[in-house]
Amino acid sequence: MGTEVPRLEGIFPPIPTPFDAGGEIDLKALAENLDWWNRFDLTGFVVLGSNGEAALLDETEKLRLVDSARAALSEDRSLIVGTGLPSTRATIVLTRAVADAGADFALVLPPSYYKGQMTDGALGRHFRTVADASPIPVILYNMPACTGIDLGAELIVSLAGHENIVGLKDSSGNVAKLGRIHAELGERFRILAGSGSFLLPALAMGAVGGVLALANIAPRQCIEIRRLSKGGDIDAARELQVRMISPNTAVTRRWGVPALKAAMEMLGLRGGPVRPPLRPLGGEQRDELRAILIEARILDRNEKEMNR
Amino acid sequence: MGTEVPRLEGIFPPIPTPFDAGGEIDLKALAENLDWWNRFDLTGFVVLGSNGEAALLDETEKLRLVDSARAALSEDRSLIVGTGLPSTRATIVLTRAVADAGADFALVLPPSYYKGQMTDGALGRHFRTVADASPIPVILYNMPACTGIDLGAELIVSLAGHENIVGLKDSSGNVAKLGRIHAELGERFRILAGSGSFLLPALAMGAVGGVLALANIAPRQCIEIRRLSKGGDIDAARELQVRMISPNTAVTRRWGVPALKAAMEMLGLRGGPVRPPLRPLGGEQRDELRAILIEARILDRNEKEMNR
Amino acid sequence: MGTEVPRLEGIFPPIPTPFDAGGEIDLKALAENLDWWNRFDLTGFVVLGSNGEAALLDETEKLRLVDSARAALSEDRSLIVGTGLPSTRATIVLTRAVADAGADFALVLPPSYYKGQMTDGALGRHFRTVADASPIPVILYNMPACTGIDLGAELIVSLAGHENIVGLKDSSGNVAKLGRIHAELGERFRILAGSGSFLLPALAMGAVGGVLALANIAPRQCIEIRRLSKGGDIDAARELQVRMISPNTAVTRRWGVPALKAAMEMLGLRGGPVRPPLRPLGGEQRDELRAILIEARILDRNEKEMNR
Amino acid sequence: MGTEVPRLEGIFPPIPTPFDAGGEIDLKALAENLDWWNRFDLTGFVVLGSNGEAALLDETEKLRLVDSARAALSEDRSLIVGTGLPSTRATIVLTRAVADAGADFALVLPPSYYKGQMTDGALGRHFRTVADASPIPVILYNMPACTGIDLGAELIVSLAGHENIVGLKDSSGNVAKLGRIHAELGERFRILAGSGSFLLPALAMGAVGGVLALANIAPRQCIEIRRLSKGGDIDAARELQVRMISPNTAVTRRWGVPALKAAMEMLGLRGGPVRPPLRPLGGEQRDELRAILIEARILDRNEKEMNR
Repeated sequence: MGTEVPRLEGIFPPIPTPFDAGGEIDLKALAENLDWWNRFDLTGFVVLGSNGEAALLDETEKLRLVDSARAALSEDRSLIVGTGLPSTRATIVLTRAVADAGADFALVLPPSYYKGQMTDGALGRHFRTVADASPIPVILYNMPACTGIDLGAELIVSLAGHENIVGLKDSSGNVAKLGRIHAELGERFRILAGSGSFLLPALAMGAVGGVLALANIAPRQCIEIRRLSKGGDIDAARELQVRMISPNTAVTRRWGVPALKAAMEMLGLRGGPVRPPLRPLGGEQRDELRAILIEARILDRNEKEMNR
Repeated sequence: MGTEVPRLEGIFPPIPTPFDAGGEIDLKALAENLDWWNRFDLTGFVVLGSNGEAALLDETEKLRLVDSARAALSEDRSLIVGTGLPSTRATIVLTRAVADAGADFALVLPPSYYKGQMTDGALGRHFRTVADASPIPVILYNMPACTGIDLGAELIVSLAGHENIVGLKDSSGNVAKLGRIHAELGERFRILAGSGSFLLPALAMGAVGGVLALANIAPRQCIEIRRLSKGGDIDAARELQVRMISPNTAVTRRWGVPALKAAMEMLGLRGGPVRPPLRPLGGEQRDELRAILIEARILDRNEKEMNR
Repeated sequence: MGTEVPRLEGIFPPIPTPFDAGGEIDLKALAENLDWWNRFDLTGFVVLGSNGEAALLDETEKLRLVDSARAALSEDRSLIVGTGLPSTRATIVLTRAVADAGADFALVLPPSYYKGQMTDGALGRHFRTVADASPIPVILYNMPACTGIDLGAELIVSLAGHENIVGLKDSSGNVAKLGRIHAELGERFRILAGSGSFLLPALAMGAVGGVLALANIAPRQCIEIRRLSKGGDIDAARELQVRMISPNTAVTRRWGVPALKAAMEMLGLRGGPVRPPLRPLGGEQRDELRAILIEARILDRNEKEMNR
Repeated sequence: MGTEVPRLEGIFPPIPTPFDAGGEIDLKALAENLDWWNRFDLTGFVVLGSNGEAALLDETEKLRLVDSARAALSEDRSLIVGTGLPSTRATIVLTRAVADAGADFALVLPPSYYKGQMTDGALGRHFRTVADASPIPVILYNMPACTGIDLGAELIVSLAGHENIVGLKDSSGNVAKLGRIHAELGERFRILAGSGSFLLPALAMGAVGGVLALANIAPRQCIEIRRLSKGGDIDAARELQVRMISPNTAVTRRWGVPALKAAMEMLGLRGGPVRPPLRPLGGEQRDELRAILIEARILDRNEKEMNR
């Protein structure tokens, strides 16, 4: 693996984990959501990412979710699974387990608790040790807003020399860094935009797709931005991209997973509650979110989503 | 509980977790260390703190460590146990388990993965929910260098109104904040300095003691700083305090747990390896650390520690 | 003015201020540089920006530079002049003076010394007061790396409602923010990329050009990136853009104005010394800079620049 | 000079610059204020500091203020004058001018516009060049909240080796750093607390006094904190210190110079307007400020200040 990279370009929603009213994972709701997402030309899905509330799940729950997602997906959909944990050894154990359960790629956050000690040397050793031990290719996951660690271009380029480290999901928004990495590595190293707010500019810098919370609620539009960009129709791509920034911000930086789940409910998908310490959106926030979705034409004024 | 607060003033070492050569926890080494620490007038110990590599341990390991520590300590030593986890429910489960195992206090980090959503409202709800469910009193644990979240004075004062939230360990170094909290709450809310670099100034602002990595390797000096301060001998307290800053910084901010364990080995205690992604100190760093310990008179020039 | 906006799209080099060996401004060197830059299809120039060491110049020097630049430029070249100063009244005085000297636009940094008091309200009042008093249109200048203040999208959109505030130069690299601003304001509000590291992605988000340190040493390439982007040839634009990131970083974030002036000297332009506290590049840094310029094909291996 | 250091211990108010209704400096109001402050055992005064709105004054205004202050002060009061400007040469020119006007010490901010280039090497060179050229001893001024640059302990210790660099005013609140500096340099290097929120803990770490905005409105209390601390009466010192935190925060970090001037007016001193971009306090803020001053017993309930 790693040399003949599986499908790792295009749009991937990092799917939320539905909980039932009692706060337990709801696999039936997950299956319903996947049934809807499967109608779109999405390359695959990310399970156990930040939007999947992975930090709030125990190991048993994690494996049940991977099993369910794999069962619901045809073989040609790539299944990316978040496996980063604070210790190197726990990360390896989880990575092997999800590989056994059918994951195609492991998406690995940097360990971030001991920030002061997480030099490039320590981070490099961690990722290489995990990649050595992983039966599936590893994607680096840069998410400074959550981890407080921003993987630098030099470290990423160095890690790309490992045959089992095949790509990067970057949520920092620093597209100049993506361009620098692309300049050094070319298309063999797969760069995925980590947010729908900068999909088009990331593509302009050499990204081949995106892992986008927005793709959960606006898959068609995300796919379309990429199609227009590849076709050189920058004006149309821009028009769609800038329209997507406000809803994307709402379900990410501004209100996070609670808003993503609320938006899914508005669209007829199954969101359900979030797990504490996350808190549900308040009523005013929901009203504002609804207005944002309508303004962006993700939701129509009769509150039916526009994609169906 | 909570109203007639147990012993929560004085000096508490947050003890490292010894691992054997194979990387597994070494309870015999822990017992040896506790045997030495028990010679000093330490109020108690913190198990499963940042210096205990708690983030790198699994739940089974955590409970074995608490059991061992409780067994090795007399009743009059307070046992504080770190129980903060990313989800509220996991934090409660662990808190109850360590209470069953004999912990006197739960030391609770703020959940920090979803930083953008961790408003004072969300954090307040989390801590109150944990405190409601906890059979033992809760100590707030502010550690922005690791969590990226700095608990504010207003939130802390508000949480102090909960009868089962009895104190704060603060590692931020912002002693003005400690003073403001003390001004509002007085001695009934126990403030503990979170680093040996500012024990004396924290005491000047109303702290009643400290949870100090430094107390693992210089318990006598930490106890002495507090004794001198209480006695009004500020000049002597200052002389000792400022001498302790360099070794304290070495085993905390500068080189972290790897240095703390290396220093313990130099003193004849059992440190052992750290768990990856943490990395052992390099040779030059060890030499510099040794020189710092000698300069601070924690280690004598013949490399026997000064306390014995 | 202000309603019928002058030429404010395309590429603008923010030109360095040449000093002679004695550290005084060297207007002859400035004229020589302008003579070379005038060969390219640059829309205009920025004088007294960060790259012009404006913070290190006195008021007399500033006006002499503006006079000289205006005299050397044909009428169809737009002259943008940096006029931001810590107080509102000093900013107004300077803005009026440079307008008298022939500036077409004032580029206004936010006042940043009293950061804690620089709320959106205070910043908004400052910019509106300056814009009211200014005889020439105002361009907002967002440069958080120098000022420590990051102008937010909401403030910028609100200020765009002032008839004499016509555009934004943004050096933050946050292209999602540019997209959001463009979504709200459209092309009537001129967005200029503030760094050559993200010109193409900024154009993808609605920018109409850039104020680029890189354009001092690679004007042809900057102009070409924009031309290719407008023509929909994204692949060629990307190839050129990503090649420009390393030299751009060298003369901005990494080594700053000293590197920009050193690069100009390598290309046969007049750089000259920087003014302290800035320090000249060391020998090793110069060697590395030369290698970067050659690798990016800005300088050929015989050390003649490629543009002539 | 520099070896036989003039009086540089005790309490120094960094005095605000009074403006009249037209926004011009009001030297008569300054004289009235100094007349009141002269009743207290203050070692001296800081003119042209952050609280003096130095960043918003022109050079002529600056020298008029220094002249007036010197004329109003007896010889035994130390006059410290802020002279830091963005360029090294401008800093030297101003330092020499204020020395001619009777300043005893120059208080020098680090140049901060080109933050990315302000390495310890560049900052060290700047301060040494200024100290070489200054006819009066130099005090380093660390004010990261305004400059975005935090002078490190190693740089400060290194600079203390210069015979004309005699002390440090530190507003960072990092008292551990002050302790480390004191451990290396002892009392010959004068450390001054830069905020009334941490005067007592700074004294505990080796500071010999403070430059405190709070001392403008509560000179007696600031002097008393230091007297109690020197006498070893820590409990009484703490009681007074923690009571001062809330008013200190109000006139510094929270609301800044506008609040300091408003508080002065409430106490019968001459504050006057602030200069834009600073904005006056709103009505609600003034009410809250008044309540804070009363609660801290700086103002009595009949709105007469307690000191007279």
